[in-house]
Amino acid sequence: MVKSTIFVSVVFTLTFFSFSASAQQKDKQHEDAVRAIYSQALSDGQCYPWLESLCKQVGHRLSGSAGAAKAVQWAKNTLDTLGLDSVWLQPVMVPHWERGAAEHVEIVGGNDKKRLKIPALALGGSVGTDGKKIQAQVVEAKSWSDLEKLGEAGIKGKIVFFNRPMDPTRIRSFEAYGGAVDQRVSGASRAAKYGAIAVVVRSMTQNVDQWPHTGSLRYDTLVPRIPAIAISTRDAEDLAKRLKKDPATAVSMILHCRSLPDVLSYNVIGEIRGSENPNEYILAGGHLDSWDVGEGAHDDGTGCVQSMDMLRILKKTGYKPKNTIRCVLFMNEENGLRGGTVYAAEAQRKGEKHLCAIETDAGGFTPRGFTFDGHGDVFETLFERIKPLRPYFEPYNMTLNPGGGGADIGPLKPQNVLLCGYYPDSQRYFDFHHTAADVFEVVNKRELELGAGSLAALIYLLDGIF
Amino acid sequence: MVKSTIFVSVVFTLTFFSFSASAQQKDKQHEDAVRAIYSQALSDGQCYPWLESLCKQVGHRLSGSAGAAKAVQWAKNTLDTLGLDSVWLQPVMVPHWERGAAEHVEIVGGNDKKRLKIPALALGGSVGTDGKKIQAQVVEAKSWSDLEKLGEAGIKGKIVFFNRPMDPTRIRSFEAYGGAVDQRVSGASRAAKYGAIAVVVRSMTQNVDQWPHTGSLRYDTLVPRIPAIAISTRDAEDLAKRLKKDPATAVSMILHCRSLPDVLSYNVIGEIRGSENPNEYILAGGHLDSWDVGEGAHDDGTGCVQSMDMLRILKKTGYKPKNTIRCVLFMNEENGLRGGTVYAAEAQRKGEKHLCAIETDAGGFTPRGFTFDGHGDVFETLFERIKPLRPYFEPYNMTLNPGGGGADIGPLKPQNVLLCGYYPDSQRYFDFHHTAADVFEVVNKRELELGAGSLAALIYLLDGIF
Repeated sequence: MVKSTIFVSVVFTLTFFSFSASAQQKDKQHEDAVRAIYSQALSDGQCYPWLESLCKQVGHRLSGSAGAAKAVQWAKNTLDTLGLDSVWLQPVMVPHWERGAAEHVEIVGGNDKKRLKIPALALGGSVGTDGKKIQAQVVEAKSWSDLEKLGEAGIKGKIVFFNRPMDPTRIRSFEAYGGAVDQRVSGASRAAKYGAIAVVVRSMTQNVDQWPHTGSLRYDTLVPRIPAIAISTRDAEDLAKRLKKDPATAVSMILHCRSLPDVLSYNVIGEIRGSENPNEYILAGGHLDSWDVGEGAHDDGTGCVQSMDMLRILKKTGYKPKNTIRCVLFMNEENGLRGGTVYAAEAQRKGEKHLCAIETDAGGFTPRGFTFDGHGDVFETLFERIKPLRPYFEPYNMTLNPGGGGADIGPLKPQNVLLCGYYPDSQRYFDFHHTAADVFEVVNKRELELGAGSLAALIYLLDGIF
Repeated sequence: MVKSTIFVSVVFTLTFFSFSASAQQKDKQHEDAVRAIYSQALSDGQCYPWLESLCKQVGHRLSGSAGAAKAVQWAKNTLDTLGLDSVWLQPVMVPHWERGAAEHVEIVGGNDKKRLKIPALALGGSVGTDGKKIQAQVVEAKSWSDLEKLGEAGIKGKIVFFNRPMDPTRIRSFEAYGGAVDQRVSGASRAAKYGAIAVVVRSMTQNVDQWPHTGSLRYDTLVPRIPAIAISTRDAEDLAKRLKKDPATAVSMILHCRSLPDVLSYNVIGEIRGSENPNEYILAGGHLDSWDVGEGAHDDGTGCVQSMDMLRILKKTGYKPKNTIRCVLFMNEENGLRGGTVYAAEAQRKGEKHLCAIETDAGGFTPRGFTFDGHGDVFETLFERIKPLRPYFEPYNMTLNPGGGGADIGPLKPQNVLLCGYYPDSQRYFDFHHTAADVFEVVNKRELELGAGSLAALIYLLDGIF
């Protein structure tokens, strides 16, 4: 950053304006305002030092943990420095799952008597083994039909190894994730139906590397809850090879994880009050909680600090919004979505009219665009109002298209809110997602700042059309 | 990579085809072929292990060095494994500049007697100091008009410190580079006109970090050649602060670099012969030489291995081109452009008709598109033929637009060749460019592979329209 040499001195003189819905041309004044917003983000952005502070002084912050409580205070304190109209904590009861002491997974004979300890991470929400080692033969399933074919005869008393890879040929890595994550989410219960005593899941990444990836699972209520643990893709490939040579291969494991009673936590909210429609809201947010490994840098420290910097940028450039602009740091996206649920319920209860909610939870990479979603019939009408904004993002190589919003803002959908997902380049996301490798150092400063600029620019433009 | 589970089995049954120049629709067969090309790049790509081998077994490879000679052999040997129709070395005489022992730069008093050694890199082509320490007072110039104002009175006998930053608010980092690199290229001679005895240049990056960046300079023949050295942007900021407090601040330096007689080296070329027009050529290439620090990973190891993998992918997918397809690894892009110059002259001499030349020399990051250039009037006609290819790249979020080609292919321009630059995301490029940090580990496998797929896809489509 070169504070000494670059000055962003544009002050917005235009507060209210309108866009012609048909014109695909840019208004020079708005174009300049967008440029000034990006320049502020890139020359004086605060999201990078904020992210370092969140990652290094707070660290990981799973819902219900001491880290999460510290993160709430960190976020409130940081927002308090910005001279906003209001910063507050919105109470949310969150689940409290603890990993406990490090898990232990070992590949054991079969015929090959050589034992092999491998790094692994219990899936979030998994039951533990009560401190006892469990051990059984492993059977591999690459598809649900594999599982069906194995049936109770092939599975009962054994450990199922789900080993369907994320398809590396999918260009958008989130689509590859969507094609594999069902194993992590529902593999345990689907295996338990056939009498499995535990599951081992191949990690969710298109790479073959050394990182086990955690992430949430969901237990069916009608079958026994069995332990579920992730191993790296490299170890999954090795285990598959070993099983080919030696189908009697077994795995032993000890999991110390457990679920405790719910804990009081908070969404953290900051806002600039609208000068004309103070009870109409445009928000940008990410989630403040993370998994309990690494530092939750890309997931979703980056989304939090970008949303915070969006408010700082708008203030710094002197913009006075006509609607109320909020940054919402949701608690408990990873394993419960309680923050998003409470936020939407409270908005409903208080009669807050939300115009648009933007979620940034896909990593702090170079922006590619925003995707828009909304409820039924209202969406098309709402999205027609977005189309004239497209030319403003062309210089930034960004597109505005229909597509996904996000998990935390999803509960607002029935309130006819225009939902919007920030869509950065996705190629590196699953190098880090839910792993010990998701630390501050893997975030690029300029890529992060461009995201903050993009959020602030979109919110500036949205405030003009709503 | 998940070789065991993903198979690319598409064989191209259609060899010759044509595109309607007006239709903006995709032909299903070509769309599938493009998909198969990308899938081959992403599921079975060789550019990543090749890059590791080039970086770790060869390392950096400045023209004329032992490393460059080793790189030529490495490239030929690797291409020889692909079953191409021809692989050969094209002789090129290249400059031979040596850094010699590590440079020494020290900030000395002024009034502050505390001395401070700082890391620095002589600019490529700089004269040395004959093993002697030179020392003088430093004067800062942030612009050419600063330099003019200082004039001979302010500069004679002193060291000029060029400290104009790359503008962090420019979205495309290459534009910011273009706005600052004149200091590195011509700063020494412009300062020498006023009697400076050496120059210190702020490194070329939008970041403020610890890496000195080397790169070539150009001496005017009419003024004395003076030593030129780059310091990191962080040290440049600190030096500027120190100069504000203490204008008498001086710098001492010893540079061991020197220029030696030209050396015989080679462009490395591999080709698949065209079945219909064997003397008409489409090429993709990068440069095999690098600076003499780091491993030349992004600059331009990635461009080399992507161009090589382009040939492998086309062969692997069974495509039989009608024109001859070449991979050209140019020697001496960094400090002479001799390889590109010789290649174009030889093409002319042999009457080789080049249809299109694609250069990949902007780092191994996620593809954003290709930019096209060409000579005068022919360009517009040529580019009209490119426009119908746009829809094929939409699923890959890539654009085809007029813009720069590249340094090595530039000499082909007078032969009415369509020039094309591969255009990846540029945000991280100047984190590494010409530094010790440009190593294999900072290249992402998927991003690299997507580039190889993009090259192969474009060449497949070009072969169809030419």
